[in-house]
Amino acid sequence: MSGKTLAVNNALILGVKGKNKLIEGSLLIKDEFIKKISDEPFDADKVIDANKNLLIPGFINTHSHVAMSRFKGLLDDIKLSEFLEKTFKLDSQRTDEDIYNSSIMGICEMIDSGITAFADLYYSEDIIARAVEDTGIRGFLSWNTLDKKFTTQTGEPIENAENFIRSFSKRSSLITPSIGVQGIYVASDDTYLKAYEISKKYGTIIHTHLAETREEINNCMKERGKRPVEQLDSIGFLNENLLAAHTVWLNLSEVRALSKKNVSISWNSVSNEKLGVGGIPPIPEMMAQGVNVSMGTDSCGSNNSLDMFCVMKNSALSLKNSRWDPSILNADELFQMATQNGSYAVHNNSIGSIGENMLADLVLIDLGASNMFPTSGNNAVNNIIYSANPGNTQTVIVNGNVLKENFRFSKNLEKLKRKAMRYLRENFNTI
Amino acid sequence: MSGKTLAVNNALILGVKGKNKLIEGSLLIKDEFIKKISDEPFDADKVIDANKNLLIPGFINTHSHVAMSRFKGLLDDIKLSEFLEKTFKLDSQRTDEDIYNSSIMGICEMIDSGITAFADLYYSEDIIARAVEDTGIRGFLSWNTLDKKFTTQTGEPIENAENFIRSFSKRSSLITPSIGVQGIYVASDDTYLKAYEISKKYGTIIHTHLAETREEINNCMKERGKRPVEQLDSIGFLNENLLAAHTVWLNLSEVRALSKKNVSISWNSVSNEKLGVGGIPPIPEMMAQGVNVSMGTDSCGSNNSLDMFCVMKNSALSLKNSRWDPSILNADELFQMATQNGSYAVHNNSIGSIGENMLADLVLIDLGASNMFPTSGNNAVNNIIYSANPGNTQTVIVNGNVLKENFRFSKNLEKLKRKAMRYLRENFNTI
Repeated sequence: MSGKTLAVNNALILGVKGKNKLIEGSLLIKDEFIKKISDEPFDADKVIDANKNLLIPGFINTHSHVAMSRFKGLLDDIKLSEFLEKTFKLDSQRTDEDIYNSSIMGICEMIDSGITAFADLYYSEDIIARAVEDTGIRGFLSWNTLDKKFTTQTGEPIENAENFIRSFSKRSSLITPSIGVQGIYVASDDTYLKAYEISKKYGTIIHTHLAETREEINNCMKERGKRPVEQLDSIGFLNENLLAAHTVWLNLSEVRALSKKNVSISWNSVSNEKLGVGGIPPIPEMMAQGVNVSMGTDSCGSNNSLDMFCVMKNSALSLKNSRWDPSILNADELFQMATQNGSYAVHNNSIGSIGENMLADLVLIDLGASNMFPTSGNNAVNNIIYSANPGNTQTVIVNGNVLKENFRFSKNLEKLKRKAMRYLRENFNTI
Repeated sequence: MSGKTLAVNNALILGVKGKNKLIEGSLLIKDEFIKKISDEPFDADKVIDANKNLLIPGFINTHSHVAMSRFKGLLDDIKLSEFLEKTFKLDSQRTDEDIYNSSIMGICEMIDSGITAFADLYYSEDIIARAVEDTGIRGFLSWNTLDKKFTTQTGEPIENAENFIRSFSKRSSLITPSIGVQGIYVASDDTYLKAYEISKKYGTIIHTHLAETREEINNCMKERGKRPVEQLDSIGFLNENLLAAHTVWLNLSEVRALSKKNVSISWNSVSNEKLGVGGIPPIPEMMAQGVNVSMGTDSCGSNNSLDMFCVMKNSALSLKNSRWDPSILNADELFQMATQNGSYAVHNNSIGSIGENMLADLVLIDLGASNMFPTSGNNAVNNIIYSANPGNTQTVIVNGNVLKENFRFSKNLEKLKRKAMRYLRENFNTI
């Protein structure tokens, strides 16, 4: 056997492909892939003893703007219009190094909360790609497009996106470049359709914001005589490459349209609620129609933590309470949304569950923590959804590389984090 | 200076009495009290270098049933009637040692999430008091009463409560005994009024569940012709000793009644929403009327984590979204609810903020964590509410004793936790 091997021995494993239940076992990882799962421990170049802690597939965060991490705690408790104005101002003043270092911090926070892959929507994704490469997380990076008159990007956004895809499609197995569209309030039919063409040409996903706020719906109705999803459907834009974030304000006919065109959605409950968008996405109706529901944190500007445990629990609470029904969504379904459904949303079927020949994107959860007791086969998923927090992620592996072990970042990651903190402290006197 | 001294030096301090802002400083603690706050570091028998991390008053959890920690993850995603039935069954089968060890686990989880004092409502509070004493947390323990025909307690609940108060009122400065009433669905006017008499006789709070579910309101209307708060007001039970948990389903006249009688409430958003009670308590209306709003986790059966960070954030999200207004409640107000308002609710004005001659109940939050960057005077409260998680509580001090230091429990606490885990594993084969 050639190549670097890593064993994770004696784990309780949740999220094994095709199995609903917790199993006891060990994994052998070779390079970036899980090669074998067995009852018996493996020998390997490096061995991690899981010591009966809980191994799960890493979470897939399907909507983020990781470069906004520096804005954490600076945009809270204000009206949406004021939030957007402040965000836009902060965003427009940034250098590449600001974006890079802010992304490093966001990626560190994601790794701490067990996120091993994320879908990002932003301009300057080439800079964010550098942060992805340096840290070793998995990034599905969508270069954001919008009508030229609304952008602060240099050059044509659509061309920038295409250049980004071309430059980064073979760069690293950790980076999957794609295109995005900001949203119906700043993108004409023409921009949407051009973005769709690019996505077809290169076989990428298209990441967009959709039906997030009442204002978006109202203005779209006023200006185009249709609701946003209806409008995009009418121009032939809804398609299976589409990853639509938010989708809070949908009617049932729009849910059916998303289903018919195999659109994936990213549910961002924490961000939505913190901005007070009102309403809760029609998740049960989407599930009934077979829409793929994944989950996202959104950015530190509106969340403010890149914490999938918080997102999963909050999503459950919101839906249960708004429907007056604690049984409307269960822990298994929520776990699936944050893992396997995420893999469908980013079109990568080698992540999101644990299995032979799957990519080794794994998180070990400490069952010795006071908040995780008791955990057994009866409640392991429940405890992940309703009790766990980022303090419980003991070890995090992405692409076969150990980025965090026994609660400590790898040397490389710790160094990147410290450097980023130093840069941001020195360059922003508000910090 | 006699007595044991402890210094916490070089901290960023939030929640100093009478100050809205973050200050840099050091604390000198003697025995259980904060003796001095200064710009300069102190010498002491033991010195903790806070190293510019964030020192806050410990959270006060004003509604819990800590002995139910063993039920974590076993009662999820089911209808309320099924939840109550299962809980009742599990509860009725318990030995004192089950209750003690389960309480130890719950207390460990609270300390991990920065809770330094909790108000508990249960039978067998004498056993829970033992767990409080052994661990060193601060407990406001209310022996639960209800009509004799509904109880599984041996003897008369009211007499049991009085005996508990008498036996424990001078036992330890960490234990404040009091009386509770389960709720209007199992307590007659007579039981409420007897409990009130006991509370007046001994000068204790009365802890109760109130207006939690629609069923409670509907049945009360049907059986007594009044809504629960109206009913309790009509018999003269509403009073300043009362700590009422939940209060989800109130009309404005009931809000005014709570205000007029100086009742404190405990907002338990996570538990309420997980059980799908529907609705959100009328917090802005209560605040406008001057009702003291504190916060509680409720039990591991319905929450399922004893995590005040999660409660604070979720409470904010629910209210903002349900009112379509992100500015309706801000981080300062939420922080106050989880600290100072908690001290009002349990009638102890020596906790809930940091000041000279206040009790030393303190939590040090790690600002080196990826999710807490950047933190400054501009956003420290925001980051506590919207970004922090239990993994960030570095050091926890209760009553001048260091229960957790540099992310590790004290030897005593670690031993108690291991013993409790062992006991519970050995005695429940579902674990």
